[in-house]
Amino acid sequence: MSKIPVAVLGATGTVGQKFVLLLAEHPYFEVRELVASERSAARPYREACSWKQDAFIPPSLADLVVKSTDEPLESRILFSGLDSSVAGPVEEAYAKAGHVVISNSKNHRMDPDVPLVIPEINHDHLELTKVQKHKGAIITNSNCSTMFLAMALAPILSNFGIEAVHVTTMQAITGAGYPGVASMDILGNVIPYIGDEEEKMETEPLKILGTLARDRILPADFKISAQCNRVPVFDGHTETVSVKLKKKASPKEVAAVLAAFRGLPQELGLPTAPKRPILVFDEVDRPQPARDVNKEGGMAACVGRIRPCPIFDIKMVVMGHNTIRGAAGAAVLNAETYLKKGYLD
Amino acid sequence: MSKIPVAVLGATGTVGQKFVLLLAEHPYFEVRELVASERSAARPYREACSWKQDAFIPPSLADLVVKSTDEPLESRILFSGLDSSVAGPVEEAYAKAGHVVISNSKNHRMDPDVPLVIPEINHDHLELTKVQKHKGAIITNSNCSTMFLAMALAPILSNFGIEAVHVTTMQAITGAGYPGVASMDILGNVIPYIGDEEEKMETEPLKILGTLARDRILPADFKISAQCNRVPVFDGHTETVSVKLKKKASPKEVAAVLAAFRGLPQELGLPTAPKRPILVFDEVDRPQPARDVNKEGGMAACVGRIRPCPIFDIKMVVMGHNTIRGAAGAAVLNAETYLKKGYLD
Amino acid sequence: MSKIPVAVLGATGTVGQKFVLLLAEHPYFEVRELVASERSAARPYREACSWKQDAFIPPSLADLVVKSTDEPLESRILFSGLDSSVAGPVEEAYAKAGHVVISNSKNHRMDPDVPLVIPEINHDHLELTKVQKHKGAIITNSNCSTMFLAMALAPILSNFGIEAVHVTTMQAITGAGYPGVASMDILGNVIPYIGDEEEKMETEPLKILGTLARDRILPADFKISAQCNRVPVFDGHTETVSVKLKKKASPKEVAAVLAAFRGLPQELGLPTAPKRPILVFDEVDRPQPARDVNKEGGMAACVGRIRPCPIFDIKMVVMGHNTIRGAAGAAVLNAETYLKKGYLD
Amino acid sequence: MSKIPVAVLGATGTVGQKFVLLLAEHPYFEVRELVASERSAARPYREACSWKQDAFIPPSLADLVVKSTDEPLESRILFSGLDSSVAGPVEEAYAKAGHVVISNSKNHRMDPDVPLVIPEINHDHLELTKVQKHKGAIITNSNCSTMFLAMALAPILSNFGIEAVHVTTMQAITGAGYPGVASMDILGNVIPYIGDEEEKMETEPLKILGTLARDRILPADFKISAQCNRVPVFDGHTETVSVKLKKKASPKEVAAVLAAFRGLPQELGLPTAPKRPILVFDEVDRPQPARDVNKEGGMAACVGRIRPCPIFDIKMVVMGHNTIRGAAGAAVLNAETYLKKGYLD
Repeated sequence: MSKIPVAVLGATGTVGQKFVLLLAEHPYFEVRELVASERSAARPYREACSWKQDAFIPPSLADLVVKSTDEPLESRILFSGLDSSVAGPVEEAYAKAGHVVISNSKNHRMDPDVPLVIPEINHDHLELTKVQKHKGAIITNSNCSTMFLAMALAPILSNFGIEAVHVTTMQAITGAGYPGVASMDILGNVIPYIGDEEEKMETEPLKILGTLARDRILPADFKISAQCNRVPVFDGHTETVSVKLKKKASPKEVAAVLAAFRGLPQELGLPTAPKRPILVFDEVDRPQPARDVNKEGGMAACVGRIRPCPIFDIKMVVMGHNTIRGAAGAAVLNAETYLKKGYLD
Repeated sequence: MSKIPVAVLGATGTVGQKFVLLLAEHPYFEVRELVASERSAARPYREACSWKQDAFIPPSLADLVVKSTDEPLESRILFSGLDSSVAGPVEEAYAKAGHVVISNSKNHRMDPDVPLVIPEINHDHLELTKVQKHKGAIITNSNCSTMFLAMALAPILSNFGIEAVHVTTMQAITGAGYPGVASMDILGNVIPYIGDEEEKMETEPLKILGTLARDRILPADFKISAQCNRVPVFDGHTETVSVKLKKKASPKEVAAVLAAFRGLPQELGLPTAPKRPILVFDEVDRPQPARDVNKEGGMAACVGRIRPCPIFDIKMVVMGHNTIRGAAGAAVLNAETYLKKGYLD
Repeated sequence: MSKIPVAVLGATGTVGQKFVLLLAEHPYFEVRELVASERSAARPYREACSWKQDAFIPPSLADLVVKSTDEPLESRILFSGLDSSVAGPVEEAYAKAGHVVISNSKNHRMDPDVPLVIPEINHDHLELTKVQKHKGAIITNSNCSTMFLAMALAPILSNFGIEAVHVTTMQAITGAGYPGVASMDILGNVIPYIGDEEEKMETEPLKILGTLARDRILPADFKISAQCNRVPVFDGHTETVSVKLKKKASPKEVAAVLAAFRGLPQELGLPTAPKRPILVFDEVDRPQPARDVNKEGGMAACVGRIRPCPIFDIKMVVMGHNTIRGAAGAAVLNAETYLKKGYLD
Repeated sequence: MSKIPVAVLGATGTVGQKFVLLLAEHPYFEVRELVASERSAARPYREACSWKQDAFIPPSLADLVVKSTDEPLESRILFSGLDSSVAGPVEEAYAKAGHVVISNSKNHRMDPDVPLVIPEINHDHLELTKVQKHKGAIITNSNCSTMFLAMALAPILSNFGIEAVHVTTMQAITGAGYPGVASMDILGNVIPYIGDEEEKMETEPLKILGTLARDRILPADFKISAQCNRVPVFDGHTETVSVKLKKKASPKEVAAVLAAFRGLPQELGLPTAPKRPILVFDEVDRPQPARDVNKEGGMAACVGRIRPCPIFDIKMVVMGHNTIRGAAGAAVLNAETYLKKGYLD
């Protein structure tokens, strides 16, 4: 199979840079176009971009001349890490022009005809793309904090049912992009507020965990209350979660269904799929972002401290890599799933 | 009034050092004795102690020779910052010998005849000291995380009633004493576990908010579920709290009763009492430990983001200085209250 | 004496906020005008300013309406924390209009007719203001890193002579203003570069330590080599210094002249003057920014580890508060000195 | 070739854990024995060890029962990460018993008959092992800070000669082992002192850069003055360096010899050898520990900001991974070199 040409939208940003790294040697996709705002356009990527990754810029892409978001593109699939201030109309325009837009932006996530997909959970929602009125399609992945909550809740919901969820997050600075959080605001500090984040966490998981009813999603029927905080951690969002179950289950039973959780990406052996999408930790003080964030290549939800809750039924700690599984990696896995399910044929 | 001679037990530790600072120029008390373990005893305080405070060692105490915890003491009041591994029998022995032990240690907090006091809330519990079989007395203050939760809940309980409370903490490293948390464990990290802390937070507030029934405390009748985390913050524990009320109230009404909260220490104008025991913040992203921890001299509970909870009724953020109001300052305020209520006459 | 009306230029910035705090209850000065860019002008200070200080905004200034830098001002003395992108012409215009501009900005520091003053060292340089062709005057203080180096070198120079100085800095994030350093760049990191900083450190101390020759300054005659780094510290620049002396001296002798150092501000008992401008530490691991930065109200240079250098003669560690003695506090002390020397009469 | 059985001494410590990771799938060596103090002995490694690495414990070693340092060992080569409090006699005893001890400990580094080796620089010093009176041998690598200084100086010395070197370090917390630096001491702080470190940096490079004269090393003939600091960085020591050359050279010429530097490990293509032992950075603000520490697998010295020094000739910034190239990786490379040079035949 020859590789499918793809583009990265918002290629100079934090998520865009992760796309570039994840796609640089991808077995299915080949990056042909790097796209950014007018300001960056027409310059070689290495100059247009303030590169912030550990690894060097992939040599094959360093000199690619950046295109502007108002230019027509040749690539079939566009990975979008566009800032939400511009993503809405830009992604729509490209979808209308026939491209498949795999978006990490929030703008279209809650659109009724746009699938919000975690392929281990709801790859069937991809059918919604057929309802879209574009020649192309828009497929989204969730907010970074939503990702790990939804992954941890999925096997609990299907096995025991859920009535309510309290969640408090401690989120890494890379979640805010670059320059993002000022060091004077976060060094040795906690900021108990992240704009718009609690609203996303209280709605997105319900769509992901919902059911496809022909041309729309019936959201899952439980309530989430979220409290979101920024902490001085580089990569990795940590979440404390309390779950009220429909059908009682012991911590051991919950741990068992989490550890056993597998989905279509694992069955298909997709290149970006983690072997175990949920890692369950037995140690009393794990998972920890600085220690565990890169396990399974940053594509797993790490869960630990599964124990009884004196008010609800189960308490646990959930953690994952906010810019890999929580952003760029999620989008790449969505694209792999979409491709392998035959939608591009 | 001549000053009352006092001693500091565990004077070389983190809490002990705070006692030394808070008592160095106290209008009621005069530090006459510094007491520590055998290892530190018989040496001048400046040598026995690895001083970790911003301020210099009070010159009047720097050369005081440290006594050992098995020596008899002359001081009427003993402020105890002893490690919990030794505090139990040591404090009891001193109480039997006739001293009033004002303790920050956990050991006797839940003893049925020992008052666990936040004077703005339950100074009447001090009556329990009369039930104690010692010649002296033991009076305790709460765990640092409990302190700010109990303070924030007190006016809510008395005005609206409480059915249940979910709380997640993000606790400062100074809460673990010195050397305490290894830097390799916490730099850029979150540790989602603090030994024994959740148990304390789920029980201590109920005793504090309970009612005195002649010779014992009837605990408050609601449930708390706590999840405790260590974060890379120096001073200041932050807590996200969701409260289920008995009687509905709007965020505005809750904010009003919190801001209006005053107690006996404020009425008496005690030297260590904050003017406003609860500071209510309107800014969407406050309180923050690095910014607000020293407000009211570190003696206030800071509360912000009071808003509706989709599951319970009210969500809010609570923050306070863990080694001042959460430890040494709390004990000093207890001693001031005990004195001014006439128990020492 | 009635207080002298003063204004703060750049009042919404990091240094401007420190000016507001230091001047709010000053015995000589009364803040009458707060001045900022067009964008902030005509709004109450509390709204125009993203307040980042521990203390609350001084209530007397919170509602003062901010003026724009192109408006005429009434105040005699203007404290300038203007950004260097605008300070040059703005400060000059105000000086021409008759104001005394006490500036923390770099723009005019090296002008031949502008004194660059640390009053303990070279208050006689204030005579240069008479050479200035303005109706008013411009008086500057040094760059924050220069400040502590110059203070530590002054008594060494006058007692033993200096031939060469190697200095490496580890500078706090507050030195870069707000938003300044992005957290993604500095959390758990060292940035071995600060734009323009090494040049300042290699030239400014020579002017400060130079001698006034009628209408100009003859710079001190030695060489400085500086290497400047940003580290994840909130307040306090630390510097490792190696000094080649003209006349040999032991570490003990150097420590003695540093500890004995006093100047005009100490003689006059100026309100912002530290009692001891240089604090000498004996402990092997001090000074440390997080522990010592607020000693003497943040107005001292802290020096420790004075020891022999295998190549030069003396090695030492120098540390001080970059936004107090290194910026706003330095300017206020300059103004106090200028006033008390009678220049305003 | 069948793999050579090796042991790790001090296997539960920070450096020992790195040895375990680096050797787990090594093409030449196979870990057969894990050795630690009495306290850890006779327990499975996974229990004896407080594992602090990102990666999981290698499954093949997790259940290996730990031996005590007073037991006889079977392995030919022993990698020692023993604490310096015990390494001296233990390593000597094992060498006497015929083992080749590849040590990261400081104890024998400066012994006249023990080679202190960086194989790119002085693999010929391995001949010293023949002078040793043991049946086996002791081979050491340098202190972590020394490593990167010596690597950066080596090509400068051989091309231009060196007269003097000023160096200031900013060292990562992992350099102090576990628990090592208390978080209360380093969070948001700089500690301007590391016990014994300056002495090592002022002597070890001279031995490494010295010449073998039959049975001893003639140290290099220049002076080093070191100032060592601890900073809140996880991995990666940063050093600012000023070098006085014997023969003048421009920054460009220095950069060229650094970038071109190669040694025996590169010629032999040793498994742990970096392709480029010195990475030269052109960016004005690099290298940075958080960004560059893992380049070349953590085995390179990263050098940047090569520029003129107003006092000496050249200033530059040097950085490297303190627990890989600065410790365990260095030892493994020494063993590979020793093996491939035929000493074990």
